[in-house]
Amino acid sequence: MKKIDGGVCAPQGFKANGVHCGIRKNRTKRDLALIVSDVRCAAACVYTQNLVKGAPILVTKKHVADGYAQAIVCNSGNANTCNADGEEIAEGMCGLVAAHTGIAAQDVVVASTGVIGRPLSLEPMAEHMGELAAGLGKHSTEAAQAIMTTDTVEKQIAYTFTLGGKTCTIGAIGKGVGMINPNMATMLVFVTTDVAISPAMLQKALSADVKDTFNMVSVDGDTSTNDMVCVLANGLAGNEPVVQAGKDYSTFRRALYAVMEHLCRCIAKDGEGATKLLECKVSGAKSKNIAKTVAKSVIKSSLFKAAMFGADANWGRVLCAIGYAGADVDVKKVDVSFRSRAGALEVCKGGSGVPFSEEEAKRILSEDEIVILISLNSGSGKATAWGCDLTYEYVRINGDYRT
Amino acid sequence: MKKIDGGVCAPQGFKANGVHCGIRKNRTKRDLALIVSDVRCAAACVYTQNLVKGAPILVTKKHVADGYAQAIVCNSGNANTCNADGEEIAEGMCGLVAAHTGIAAQDVVVASTGVIGRPLSLEPMAEHMGELAAGLGKHSTEAAQAIMTTDTVEKQIAYTFTLGGKTCTIGAIGKGVGMINPNMATMLVFVTTDVAISPAMLQKALSADVKDTFNMVSVDGDTSTNDMVCVLANGLAGNEPVVQAGKDYSTFRRALYAVMEHLCRCIAKDGEGATKLLECKVSGAKSKNIAKTVAKSVIKSSLFKAAMFGADANWGRVLCAIGYAGADVDVKKVDVSFRSRAGALEVCKGGSGVPFSEEEAKRILSEDEIVILISLNSGSGKATAWGCDLTYEYVRINGDYRT
Repeated sequence: MKKIDGGVCAPQGFKANGVHCGIRKNRTKRDLALIVSDVRCAAACVYTQNLVKGAPILVTKKHVADGYAQAIVCNSGNANTCNADGEEIAEGMCGLVAAHTGIAAQDVVVASTGVIGRPLSLEPMAEHMGELAAGLGKHSTEAAQAIMTTDTVEKQIAYTFTLGGKTCTIGAIGKGVGMINPNMATMLVFVTTDVAISPAMLQKALSADVKDTFNMVSVDGDTSTNDMVCVLANGLAGNEPVVQAGKDYSTFRRALYAVMEHLCRCIAKDGEGATKLLECKVSGAKSKNIAKTVAKSVIKSSLFKAAMFGADANWGRVLCAIGYAGADVDVKKVDVSFRSRAGALEVCKGGSGVPFSEEEAKRILSEDEIVILISLNSGSGKATAWGCDLTYEYVRINGDYRT
Repeated sequence: MKKIDGGVCAPQGFKANGVHCGIRKNRTKRDLALIVSDVRCAAACVYTQNLVKGAPILVTKKHVADGYAQAIVCNSGNANTCNADGEEIAEGMCGLVAAHTGIAAQDVVVASTGVIGRPLSLEPMAEHMGELAAGLGKHSTEAAQAIMTTDTVEKQIAYTFTLGGKTCTIGAIGKGVGMINPNMATMLVFVTTDVAISPAMLQKALSADVKDTFNMVSVDGDTSTNDMVCVLANGLAGNEPVVQAGKDYSTFRRALYAVMEHLCRCIAKDGEGATKLLECKVSGAKSKNIAKTVAKSVIKSSLFKAAMFGADANWGRVLCAIGYAGADVDVKKVDVSFRSRAGALEVCKGGSGVPFSEEEAKRILSEDEIVILISLNSGSGKATAWGCDLTYEYVRINGDYRT
């Protein structure tokens, strides 16, 4: 597997673009993205579990019900959620794509991200859809920028790999970075690939993958109303189509995981106001589910996140979060270490503190990527969760997000 | 029922005191509190549900297993949790009380609050227990100050009421204000009363009460390792002892609720870094449990808490938190209003936004006590939860708590 440039446009037959259409006031910020395939694609999606669902989620569900799609349109700056005319507007966005690309409206995946409860007008999108479609090309970066909200950097990735003797490619763009909490699907992530795979196997791969990737990311514990991960597979790599479990399916799963894990880390590290990526690795649990529950509890603790912002080795807060996780854990067996580029340090052994140098701890925790290693010493279950520190900047961003 | 001064010393036969013994470096901060009754009391406690429990919790459980106690000792500055010798130290604290008051060590309730995982030495307490016991008197304020950690004000309350023709009194002190999340019992709260009541009925009253009071408070979503609410009832009011449900029990329940609700509000309003008390009142739920789940979900949302700090009427975050609460709610029926001393404002009707004046919203949300009214329009279940806004100061306090 080899990392390459190109994002969602790296696989054969995919083009993308992103423009400023005017949903956002800031004219330098792109706010409308389009991704299209030359041919119809197998399509798989996972969605937020929030009962309040953005209108685009409802429309997308209908459009991919047959397992196929050919384009993705997404605006930022407005979530099109809790609006009486939301579904009509979302259908309208698909209609605009159809009018300018010739792709059937019911083959368009639609997504929106931004403020909840503010009416979304079709007008700026109608005005700029022609320009957006005419400019389609190898513009993954522009598309990645157009879906950003409070993100500070665009997020994209691509890999090539061999499957059934054919060179295949998978690429993706994603956005975070607030209202993020593991609950089936989180954030917006659009994945493209030229692998030939059936809709059923594509959905199976995606649903399995998110359990270990996006469902293990938390920025602030708030599950968004508009989360969606969508994969389009157009088959242009010419491999023998993947229609069942086996070697080729496993190869595809590994490539999908590599793309998804990369975006998880990007999104957590760029979490609203974050200065550090936190990676919590739990091992020795009685089951994988226990390991997941513990990892997520630690990564979500406001107190622990604030301590990491202060580079404070306050491991008591790790123990506290393990204790209230609601998982079957023998707290007298828990070991905890902190690790970064600057070194590793054991701080807790068998549930009690061990002496350590505060200066050494400060040095390790001052890096921008911190691994929290937790060994439960009770089995072989393991899991990883990703998150970020809690900072002044998070409060500033969210104290007045709408203005 | 009449509010009076005196805190835990208001009921007949109770004395208290608080001194600086040296667990904390700051010599102006009291760190050791003692409450004693002239006679043995019926005792009831509820404890944290965290699997990691402070050593004092384990010792207190043993001491009140027979339903009786006569004194409460509590230090701040060190939680005596995750320490290998923790139980020995907690027993030692009870032994010191016994030596200086003549009360049996097994009739002493012991509590600790502060940093987790730092060894606690008996020495400073041994040096100052004589002074603490000799100074016992109507010093509820000093005791309330001695149990504070990041609290900015001491918290105490007392009421008189009539029960079976006798004038009875109930008083309490409490402390917060971080690592607070509803989970059976939260924080440290010590209640005294001169009511005559059996240990069984006292426990029943307390266990029922915390479900609607302390279990509905969240500051940061972290359930502490050392939470405890303890009630001592010494019977000196001379009422016919309460030994079963009925009119007198109901009267006592109302007095207990008044004391507990007051402390809930105090603790939420003084939440770490908080500038505002948030009170979320949910009505029209299909059941009381649904109302509770929804109220807690909203009060715990970091995004909503940050919006309240910024006096930003971002009601979409209220809808979002209702949607991910995990409760049976018809989101198309939800109405939301904000209310404060400055007025009231409807922002959402039937799950969609209604036009409102942003200036009016800013004026209402700039007050220091905000009520969020949520009507689910699906039944008669209702509940209230208390919390606070998320501020820069919360991050500052917790970014470097230990130093």
